[in-house]
Amino acid sequence: MSHSEYDVACLTVRLGAVAENYRTCRRLAAGAVTSGVVKANGYGLGAAQVTAKLLAEGCDTFFVARLEEGIAIRPIAPKARIFVLDGPHATSAPAFVTHNLTPVLNSLEQVAIWSKAAPGRDAAVHFDTGLNRLGLPPSELSVLAAEAKLHRAGFNLVLVMSHLACAEDPALPMNAEQLSRFRAGLATLPPAPASLASSGGILLGRDYAFDLVRPGIALAGGNPQSGLSNPFAVTVRLTGRILQRRRVDKGECVGYGATFRVVRPTSLATVALGYADGLMRALGNKGAGAIAGHKAPIVGRMSMDLVTLDVTDIPEDLAATGAEVEFLGDTMLLEDMAQAAGTAAYEILTSLGRRVRRVYEGAA
Amino acid sequence: MSHSEYDVACLTVRLGAVAENYRTCRRLAAGAVTSGVVKANGYGLGAAQVTAKLLAEGCDTFFVARLEEGIAIRPIAPKARIFVLDGPHATSAPAFVTHNLTPVLNSLEQVAIWSKAAPGRDAAVHFDTGLNRLGLPPSELSVLAAEAKLHRAGFNLVLVMSHLACAEDPALPMNAEQLSRFRAGLATLPPAPASLASSGGILLGRDYAFDLVRPGIALAGGNPQSGLSNPFAVTVRLTGRILQRRRVDKGECVGYGATFRVVRPTSLATVALGYADGLMRALGNKGAGAIAGHKAPIVGRMSMDLVTLDVTDIPEDLAATGAEVEFLGDTMLLEDMAQAAGTAAYEILTSLGRRVRRVYEGAA
Repeated sequence: MSHSEYDVACLTVRLGAVAENYRTCRRLAAGAVTSGVVKANGYGLGAAQVTAKLLAEGCDTFFVARLEEGIAIRPIAPKARIFVLDGPHATSAPAFVTHNLTPVLNSLEQVAIWSKAAPGRDAAVHFDTGLNRLGLPPSELSVLAAEAKLHRAGFNLVLVMSHLACAEDPALPMNAEQLSRFRAGLATLPPAPASLASSGGILLGRDYAFDLVRPGIALAGGNPQSGLSNPFAVTVRLTGRILQRRRVDKGECVGYGATFRVVRPTSLATVALGYADGLMRALGNKGAGAIAGHKAPIVGRMSMDLVTLDVTDIPEDLAATGAEVEFLGDTMLLEDMAQAAGTAAYEILTSLGRRVRRVYEGAA
Repeated sequence: MSHSEYDVACLTVRLGAVAENYRTCRRLAAGAVTSGVVKANGYGLGAAQVTAKLLAEGCDTFFVARLEEGIAIRPIAPKARIFVLDGPHATSAPAFVTHNLTPVLNSLEQVAIWSKAAPGRDAAVHFDTGLNRLGLPPSELSVLAAEAKLHRAGFNLVLVMSHLACAEDPALPMNAEQLSRFRAGLATLPPAPASLASSGGILLGRDYAFDLVRPGIALAGGNPQSGLSNPFAVTVRLTGRILQRRRVDKGECVGYGATFRVVRPTSLATVALGYADGLMRALGNKGAGAIAGHKAPIVGRMSMDLVTLDVTDIPEDLAATGAEVEFLGDTMLLEDMAQAAGTAAYEILTSLGRRVRRVYEGAA
């Protein structure tokens, strides 16, 4: 097993797969503008690299959560529309203007801040249809609608959006309820492009696509709907290397708290990758790694910097010191790791640690 | 509520508290050298800043996990002893020499690599006493001991170490067993400084301190022993701000998957902080934030960028838009968050996201 460098762990990001996933979204949302959601460092993949790749695919509209995220990608996408989901507060509004970022207005308070700080300028309006998280509640939406009718809204409405709560499960009636509330709310506002669907919504069908869709997890290769096969390509590969192999007898314990007791003579391999690298601690005694395509279970608690696998059933020459172990990739799927860790693919991706060297394939 | 900048979230690191925790460790380990473990970016606090602060306290010995981490802090601590816990592999050994880093040798294979690449140079030996993770197993220790007796070890032994599995619980017999195995193993090797205790071990008493102790989580203010009061000072404060406040009726649901249904007219506050910022997703419907000292439960699932609190019982003027919410700090303790998330303080710290602005207080 050769070491090209001395790093023991690596996160490979396949930008070609990100582009492929973008094209899949565009096909599914036929007719709608397909934006790129690159908040949270592009779902952990690297906002700069993902933004550049999507630009090369013809994407000209991006969404971030924080103002700082918009400022960071502005130089990469100088002409693109960049929406900031958090919206402005009193002291941040001037920075939106300076960096030509379009705020998403989530409340009458934000409408007032923006109308005062940047009168007549572009903004999106986000109204709530049942997620009860962010966005104008119905009472505020009707106030805004009345103001808009009198041309007193004070800003230029370029997008009306809302956010689905349960798009991961197409069987839930909440989806149709939110769709209906979105249509009703839209009808009260002046004509403007509309957007309801993120990745999960795109899979709910054309009714949900409106004028613009906002894929995020889909671009990163996560499955936006549980229970259905994943239409999106694998974009990340997380690998470590075996630091040490040992043979232990029946009765020995493994790891902190001695939570795993071996019940047969066992070969253990300790890999230089831990929860500080993004392998969540919840994977202890639950997750697995793959060595040359053979899966090996994680035994004992995860450590901060290390993880131990039971490699007894893997040919010894494959699981030697220095061997590469895949924790995410084509054998070890994102959704399987998320399930083992009791979380969602989203958090697996955003947890991928900064200590791991990143290699980008297929950069734009 | 004033905004000094436009950022909506902040991680304040109290380096003075780190120094205080270092002095507490030194007092508890009276007579032993107290090193600083700064792996995993200094347990999430910032390896560079923590290293500089500990140096100013007189600390001259550091531990990191990865070679790259040692290289990163070398310029900050040019004269310090820096141990690298992963040890060398064949192609990385020269970099240890270049950067004057001391490897911890965890296997006969690593002993051979180091003796060949850097004959006669300093190294630590780590032998296993029951954690079964890393370190020479008993069979390899006896081989090394025999070679050392014949002065054929090929390197200069500067430290002998092992690692406790269950130091978080002083009642477990495993601690005394490992202590006994460590003493027995030490006796077979040439005389050298010895180290068994990390933070938990330091609290087990002077018997466990030997010549050098290795506090990590204790410096960061985590409680190394469950069930005892925490002798270490709070080092981090994680805060966000309320982006929006809303009133919802009984029967409304909150967040993705509609997992929380309100049972009374409820005031909700959505804060611009999510699991991409290090507030683990497991805190959904379990964790809490504090507004001006009043605790407010997290309701619904955590989002990537947002979290929603039930602020019904908090005076409205305190929980207005822009109000600061503490998720970690003097009111919201690290251990409480770890318990709510079903994990350990260690993972909470190493998960603290890169998106949050960091402010260092008391820099060296």
